[in-house]
Amino acid sequence: MTLSNIEIAQAARMLSIQRIAEQIGIPDNALEPYGRHKAKVALGWLAGLDDRTDGKLVLVTAVSPTPAGEGKTTTTVGLGDALRRIGHRSMICLREPALGPVFGMKGGAAGGGHAQVVPMEDINLHFTGDFSAIGVATNLLAALIDNHIHRGNALGIDVRRITWRRVLDVNDRALRDVVVGLGGPDNGYPRESGFDIVVASEVMAVFCLATDLADLRTRLGEIVVGYTRERTPVRARDLSANGAMTAILRDALAPNLVQTLEHTPAFVHGGPFANIAHGCNSVVATRAALKLADYVVTEAGFGSDLGAEKFVDILCRSSGLRPSAAVIVATVRAMKYHGGVDVADLATEDVEAVERGAPNLIRHLGIVRETLGLPAVVAINHRAEDTDAEVQALVAVVEQTGARAVVARHFAEGGAGAEQLAHEVVRLCDEPSTLQFTYPDDATLWRKMKTIATRIYGASDITANTAVRRQIQRLQDEGYGGYPVCVAKTQYSFSTDPKLRGAPTGHIVDIREVRLAAGAGFVVMVCGDVMTMPGLPAVPAAESIDVDENGRIVGLF
Amino acid sequence: MTLSNIEIAQAARMLSIQRIAEQIGIPDNALEPYGRHKAKVALGWLAGLDDRTDGKLVLVTAVSPTPAGEGKTTTTVGLGDALRRIGHRSMICLREPALGPVFGMKGGAAGGGHAQVVPMEDINLHFTGDFSAIGVATNLLAALIDNHIHRGNALGIDVRRITWRRVLDVNDRALRDVVVGLGGPDNGYPRESGFDIVVASEVMAVFCLATDLADLRTRLGEIVVGYTRERTPVRARDLSANGAMTAILRDALAPNLVQTLEHTPAFVHGGPFANIAHGCNSVVATRAALKLADYVVTEAGFGSDLGAEKFVDILCRSSGLRPSAAVIVATVRAMKYHGGVDVADLATEDVEAVERGAPNLIRHLGIVRETLGLPAVVAINHRAEDTDAEVQALVAVVEQTGARAVVARHFAEGGAGAEQLAHEVVRLCDEPSTLQFTYPDDATLWRKMKTIATRIYGASDITANTAVRRQIQRLQDEGYGGYPVCVAKTQYSFSTDPKLRGAPTGHIVDIREVRLAAGAGFVVMVCGDVMTMPGLPAVPAAESIDVDENGRIVGLF
Repeated sequence: MTLSNIEIAQAARMLSIQRIAEQIGIPDNALEPYGRHKAKVALGWLAGLDDRTDGKLVLVTAVSPTPAGEGKTTTTVGLGDALRRIGHRSMICLREPALGPVFGMKGGAAGGGHAQVVPMEDINLHFTGDFSAIGVATNLLAALIDNHIHRGNALGIDVRRITWRRVLDVNDRALRDVVVGLGGPDNGYPRESGFDIVVASEVMAVFCLATDLADLRTRLGEIVVGYTRERTPVRARDLSANGAMTAILRDALAPNLVQTLEHTPAFVHGGPFANIAHGCNSVVATRAALKLADYVVTEAGFGSDLGAEKFVDILCRSSGLRPSAAVIVATVRAMKYHGGVDVADLATEDVEAVERGAPNLIRHLGIVRETLGLPAVVAINHRAEDTDAEVQALVAVVEQTGARAVVARHFAEGGAGAEQLAHEVVRLCDEPSTLQFTYPDDATLWRKMKTIATRIYGASDITANTAVRRQIQRLQDEGYGGYPVCVAKTQYSFSTDPKLRGAPTGHIVDIREVRLAAGAGFVVMVCGDVMTMPGLPAVPAAESIDVDENGRIVGLF
Repeated sequence: MTLSNIEIAQAARMLSIQRIAEQIGIPDNALEPYGRHKAKVALGWLAGLDDRTDGKLVLVTAVSPTPAGEGKTTTTVGLGDALRRIGHRSMICLREPALGPVFGMKGGAAGGGHAQVVPMEDINLHFTGDFSAIGVATNLLAALIDNHIHRGNALGIDVRRITWRRVLDVNDRALRDVVVGLGGPDNGYPRESGFDIVVASEVMAVFCLATDLADLRTRLGEIVVGYTRERTPVRARDLSANGAMTAILRDALAPNLVQTLEHTPAFVHGGPFANIAHGCNSVVATRAALKLADYVVTEAGFGSDLGAEKFVDILCRSSGLRPSAAVIVATVRAMKYHGGVDVADLATEDVEAVERGAPNLIRHLGIVRETLGLPAVVAINHRAEDTDAEVQALVAVVEQTGARAVVARHFAEGGAGAEQLAHEVVRLCDEPSTLQFTYPDDATLWRKMKTIATRIYGASDITANTAVRRQIQRLQDEGYGGYPVCVAKTQYSFSTDPKLRGAPTGHIVDIREVRLAAGAGFVVMVCGDVMTMPGLPAVPAAESIDVDENGRIVGLF
């Protein structure tokens, strides 16, 4: 009988969070416990570790996501557990799952099978309240904007040019486009606006890139919320909002410590969307983990085209973090899907389809090894229905590139199933790593976007209509040209067409929209459709989530 | 030099929450710590106390609120401390402050001076995440409604008759009236709606009236979210929403334990608005406290016309809780304000104005003693500028009614300043208490409203236009006639005119609107204007709230 993720998680014997903390030398007085199995680690104590040598950072990325699932988080957890099993002091750094999608289609996002972080229900629900705090900070700023206008608009904000949107951690399509301020003069000035999901907010990106409270406060102040009629940017600090926003986020900025099913310590902290934002957990958490462990395994959202590229070009650039090696997660099923097989037929053996789909993996491998300069190994996340012939075919394709592919069975076996992967990662971490950015700081915004599109996505060119080009030029002229570009595009394809599987080349990337994220310190280029507020499916997961007569949560995946 | 509330609170030496719990016999394994000074007490452990005898419940209410401030929460805390000082095992039960108003005008709401619950910043900000959970549950239900309609509307919900509103814990007038679902077919059907502040939500009322998780789940299922074209009610359970909502609220339902500045244990849990909802902390917390302490001091929102009446007629009726005595908080300043003095002149001695304003207090005293049948004492919450002549005048007026008035100096002196009050409360608790409801269950909704208006508010009659009368009749016909009435009206006057100070009589109470709260189990009658989403003032408190270089929050009152 196969147990569900939540059944495995609920059956786990967790250690007290104090015991977990002890393993990595965190004293009791540096812990703020949230229940018995979660704790925040005090920023003040972490600041005292600055002199320590950093451990090695391992970045987990993946092939282009498919409906078949790849198991990036699961592999991150399994690898962390395996590194610990083979004798290293290891830690894991993950993003916090968004609450909204848990009630939609997605179920939990804390790993799977025997490679999970726990307590799984808590992590998937409110956890330590970080996302709530990010939501309140975002919505307070929105209220201050409308209140400022209502009270006379001394700053001359143009109500047509307010870019700041409110957020909720709920999948709610009805909030994507709304009109607020209706109902008469007491309710302010009517205007068009909308809500995003919390993980798509700039405050989330700022939170994850900030290095400490002071940096957080400064970045929040830099946020551009809109423009005057004369197109002068209006910032959060012009509204004296950033102090209160920092107060709201103060406790949240301390990283959250939990454990894996095998008691490996894990920070689960921050969680920006990888399509609209940079898609990595907080810099605060990763930095802290590097002071506490010899190997730190972290993941970046979606495939290497989105996650790894942004990890390097945005996060590493601003934070100074440097990964020593990378793991690219692939599954036989995902390869078959990229090879053109329908979802319904993925369980049938099809070696040729694996080979047809493999170029997607090889492209990702090339991005990581050649473009970004990281030593990399392919982790084949094994599933029960994979045949030996399929697995061998996939290994063979990878080995033709000079890289290695390792079969990992952590889903079924926990860390023991990923020991070979762990040994390979340790070996790679000792190889010379020559991390390089995709583009230099001083390239123009247009050039940066073109470089990403051609070098990473395999596109032949980029396009944009006149209005968008003018907007890019304006940002360039206003002094934002030095910012990195954060591409918002579909995760399902190297192109902007989610249906284009495999490793397409020669396509054109059209920039639909440009958004300034001055607090986060990047310029978002929206290419194709991008979702900043998901909707619920025809049968929402919420319908089957419940609490049983013993007070236990049921129906979470 | 006078210290601000936050300065006093931050200078406090708190005991660990385990030490506080020990005092009242809560074992370590029944605590879910949230940091070092907050904890949730496990519902499972509390359920095991059912056989214990209850302590005595003391209800704190007040005169009609004025801009001068009365200090109801402060007195509740001071009395709890004083009861402990004179040798009783006491506990305090308070509402959790709403986050939104903290950034508006109000500052904190955790007591004041030397009578506060701490950690004050935490309690005023995110605390243990209860309000966030209540917000998510409310907004998930809203998303499920719009998704249901978008997906074909099998239940036939009339989009014009959806009564369920979304919530945020932010003061944001721009969200009072909005249009959602704009932007084309992908975003659902456009319709008018709006946002309330979390504390005004029905989920908050349900949360505070529920006796356990199963009751919570049932009540959430009963919530009526709107109607079909044929006026059939559509309930949350018809959308299979109540299981997931219960899962979201599961952890939140365990009461939050904190301490006063003097280490008296306090539950701070739940916080429905007293104007739109019933205005008392959770039944779960009060019941638990009665098993753990000999004296439990709790407060009900605003004056006795709103708070005490609803405490008795709604909360006591549904939960079986029975207070043994009541305290009515008054200040010399508030009496002068009710006596017609302008806010600017309140610091000037004016004995006659005290006497002119005292009828407000006497009316509240009569409601509590005669209408509700509770032994009661007046607590004169002393302020530095009160003169002896003013205080004596106020005491004299109270004594003419046969009741006692005690001067309490807990704001300046902590519990030591309220010992006389504590002795009087203990004496009253031994007097026979003959709690009586204002109206019987089987009176019609109209008759219930009329009884409240005439007996409590001193009105001569109630009115309503034809549409409202028809709506009341419809609810009566549909079987909701047995519910108690929850009046939503201004807290500043016995009448529906906030400017009518003192103790007006002969006025007419017009019912503007009727709302069914089928989950909470009451019918809301809105009389005059009532605010379910506050706005920010011209200079929001947010502008001065900040984090200093040591990571300390500053600017909270």
